[in-house]
Amino acid sequence: MLVLNNHEIAGLLSLDEVIAAVEAALIANEQNSCLVPKRMHIDWGENTFLSMPSFSDTCFGTKLVSVVPGNRQHDLAVTNGAMLLNDARTGFPLAIMNGAKLTALRTGALGAIGIKYMTPPDTDTIGLIGCGVQGIQQAIFACAVRPVKKIYCLQRSASGMAAFTTALREQFPAVTVIPCEDAATILQHTNVVIAASRSATPVLPNDIRLLENKHFISIGSYKPDMQELPDLVFQLSGKLAIDSVFAKTETGDIINPLRKGILQEQDVFTIGKILTGEIQVDVAGTTAYKSAGMALFDLFVAKALYETAKSRRIGTDIDF
Amino acid sequence: MLVLNNHEIAGLLSLDEVIAAVEAALIANEQNSCLVPKRMHIDWGENTFLSMPSFSDTCFGTKLVSVVPGNRQHDLAVTNGAMLLNDARTGFPLAIMNGAKLTALRTGALGAIGIKYMTPPDTDTIGLIGCGVQGIQQAIFACAVRPVKKIYCLQRSASGMAAFTTALREQFPAVTVIPCEDAATILQHTNVVIAASRSATPVLPNDIRLLENKHFISIGSYKPDMQELPDLVFQLSGKLAIDSVFAKTETGDIINPLRKGILQEQDVFTIGKILTGEIQVDVAGTTAYKSAGMALFDLFVAKALYETAKSRRIGTDIDF
Repeated sequence: MLVLNNHEIAGLLSLDEVIAAVEAALIANEQNSCLVPKRMHIDWGENTFLSMPSFSDTCFGTKLVSVVPGNRQHDLAVTNGAMLLNDARTGFPLAIMNGAKLTALRTGALGAIGIKYMTPPDTDTIGLIGCGVQGIQQAIFACAVRPVKKIYCLQRSASGMAAFTTALREQFPAVTVIPCEDAATILQHTNVVIAASRSATPVLPNDIRLLENKHFISIGSYKPDMQELPDLVFQLSGKLAIDSVFAKTETGDIINPLRKGILQEQDVFTIGKILTGEIQVDVAGTTAYKSAGMALFDLFVAKALYETAKSRRIGTDIDF
Repeated sequence: MLVLNNHEIAGLLSLDEVIAAVEAALIANEQNSCLVPKRMHIDWGENTFLSMPSFSDTCFGTKLVSVVPGNRQHDLAVTNGAMLLNDARTGFPLAIMNGAKLTALRTGALGAIGIKYMTPPDTDTIGLIGCGVQGIQQAIFACAVRPVKKIYCLQRSASGMAAFTTALREQFPAVTVIPCEDAATILQHTNVVIAASRSATPVLPNDIRLLENKHFISIGSYKPDMQELPDLVFQLSGKLAIDSVFAKTETGDIINPLRKGILQEQDVFTIGKILTGEIQVDVAGTTAYKSAGMALFDLFVAKALYETAKSRRIGTDIDF
């Protein structure tokens, strides 16, 4: 069994390779060639535990995630996890890898796929609401799919802003980072906004002049009581792309517009249908995309990481 | 994170230490100091996948198990698995260990606990129906809790019988192994029978002269359509000890006698209640015990394995 830590995972795949793995998962999901059970969610005191298995023809795997808010007080990561990857033919474990970097990579790729298929190809500026761990990945992956020159950022803490700028510069030194005071300023400068907050209420003003014909990607909200995008975005877009049908019951950015009748069931579609050609999107108008994650994305990225690590002899191979 | 393979796990704990860990889990379960969600069970083609999390004050963990019947044709283990152990305070992974040996140890201990609390202390013979991988563990652990001199065995394959004898002799060379032609012969020679089969129908004759005032332990049945012990055992015992309440819905050895009215709900009790002193059992009469396993037993044994391995510097410690 191969053991891969965060450091080893970080350099294994190019951004394009991670995106390709997630796209393959989206297509496999459309073709129903995989099995993705509803994830197991356990609350244990103030902590949360998730068990996320998924199955493909060649491999299956389980991401085990813990969310321990109390870690913040001790300067430890709140979210931790590990992914066990197994051979589908024998069930034998192939690899165990740290879940933190894996999750960051696939979440970044999911945002980039929204940009790739739902914004104009010549997009050279983006706005980013929330520049934390998630926001950094969103910015880096966005730069992989569009010729981004400027990123307009909203980030409350100065230390967070500095960490973001440093991380982005490492990979894309030519991109200019522009801190902004509010979301309205961002919307005045760019047509593409990625929300990577954990906000319970919309992080953008509900103002038609600022929102119309723009492109919105929500990454941060992951609970029914969280909504990042204002209702007007859904009114303007008339449609909402999502990364998996599980998202429909998980996050307020889908639950609320459906409940309020702003969107109907048939207006919500999986972005995989754009990849397979089943649905076309007009990027001249307003577009909205919500990513909530799914175990299958972890599985496909984990498999790509494992295969590359094996071929390059990276990681610790243990007789298990 | 510590990685422990089967070989490293095998020698870490004494039989008594494994039994003590499982007893601690049984008591903790009675005291409701732990959380054990219903395990996730996924059928994927002809294969089965289980995700079994459980939570205690100090640690939590998840055993991930795959059952691939097709492995038999390739001389590979049908059941495989891994256990991830986490620190309850931070959620960080502490260890990943091979699930095969862990499961074998805790299952052996669960059988031994049945013998320890539900048979006479001077028991020096046992009968064993099924001497495969499970049966070997049952015999070894039984010898740890009773002064066993002879084991009467029913095992169809000669190679299985030979492997059993070799494995037992390694740990208990003074114990005599006596292969028998049928279960009736076994019952004529001993008062304690352990069933470690995967039989759909009872492996013992429904004969009062052979069953009365004897002690029965069912380990092998794990599905509603499997029943190892004949109905008469439950009529004679009037009570049935089980290792966890989950067993009530999992195996025919409990479902069937309840459905037929041979036992009432109040006749079925968790064996932990004997350990806490809440229930006394008269070992002069017929007794019946069914073990079906539970994630919490894996958790407590995994924790004991981890702590011993850490203190003895066994396993591979990886910066994860």
